[in-house]
Amino acid sequence: MTEITSLTQQRSKDKEESLILGIDPGTVVMGYGLILKTGNKFSLIQFGVIHLKKYASHEQKLQKIFERVLSIIDEYHPDEMALEAPFYAKNVQSMLKLGRAQGVAMAAALSRQIPISEYLPKKVKQSVTGNGNASKEQVARMLQGVLRFKEVPYLLDSTDALAVALCHIYHKGNRKTSTKGWKDFIKENPDRLK
Amino acid sequence: MTEITSLTQQRSKDKEESLILGIDPGTVVMGYGLILKTGNKFSLIQFGVIHLKKYASHEQKLQKIFERVLSIIDEYHPDEMALEAPFYAKNVQSMLKLGRAQGVAMAAALSRQIPISEYLPKKVKQSVTGNGNASKEQVARMLQGVLRFKEVPYLLDSTDALAVALCHIYHKGNRKTSTKGWKDFIKENPDRLK
Repeated sequence: MTEITSLTQQRSKDKEESLILGIDPGTVVMGYGLILKTGNKFSLIQFGVIHLKKYASHEQKLQKIFERVLSIIDEYHPDEMALEAPFYAKNVQSMLKLGRAQGVAMAAALSRQIPISEYLPKKVKQSVTGNGNASKEQVARMLQGVLRFKEVPYLLDSTDALAVALCHIYHKGNRKTSTKGWKDFIKENPDRLK
Repeated sequence: MTEITSLTQQRSKDKEESLILGIDPGTVVMGYGLILKTGNKFSLIQFGVIHLKKYASHEQKLQKIFERVLSIIDEYHPDEMALEAPFYAKNVQSMLKLGRAQGVAMAAALSRQIPISEYLPKKVKQSVTGNGNASKEQVARMLQGVLRFKEVPYLLDSTDALAVALCHIYHKGNRKTSTKGWKDFIKENPDRLK
């Protein structure tokens, strides 16, 4: 914990750094993961799951999601949140519950003025493994290589959360460097016109 | 506004009072309404809509819902929130969006430790008009009679929000007075055993 705190404290000194919180929302288990990007390097800060099965009512589950995501935000102060957002479910009822779970997690970020980005599961898998149809295990093993953690956890919701954080870092990196033409070049480099 | 503030300030003196915030969540227009219950009397405190169409992105809409619901809560300090919660939509995508809108509105209440109750639209209509298939206009006119407001507003999302607040008051009242037998009677009247 001391190591993490010192990492967080050091962050403000370096403007090249950004801390991304990845969230894989669910109504039974919710995964979260924090990746620190320093220049072109990535460091794993934390990952884990929030167990929701033990809470009897849907409202209690939502309250727990809100409280836990808010406490993670207040502990680590991430710069951005990335959300894995499936656009389908078994039925409309599951979709409503999933939407609510996503909504309260998003509200925790919105209440702290943290920007949110969403990615489809296929896009996350594609970004991390190069294959949009990769299994959760393949995603976890790829992350283990990039982020150098010792053991793949039992619940892969946490590695899924790390995956969406990493996907956002890749995506953001690409957006920054992609210039579509002369107009974009001028916009991004106004001083080069002189 | 002065009248409302003084009403809110007076509330703490009277334990028989409770202020209910009704919410009719939507992703285009969100309705809200506040009803003060004093003994067996109901007073309309406020009702209105939050327009969401002007916000381009889904995240902006969610942020606005969260901020506005939170500001209503912080202004009026309701004791409870009642939510109109349909369990169906055109398709799973609409259901996800609706779920998120509900989620952020619920998160605003959860962040202030305000209990939430949900009611199906049919239940709300049944409670307020006696007919589960009543039109929005019928609901609005019935509310106008009970809460004595001058004009039915153009957007009926606000009267729908008042309707769910009133439904909660009726439902809560029923729960309090319903005793199922001797066991319940003893539990609720322990002094009567002496």
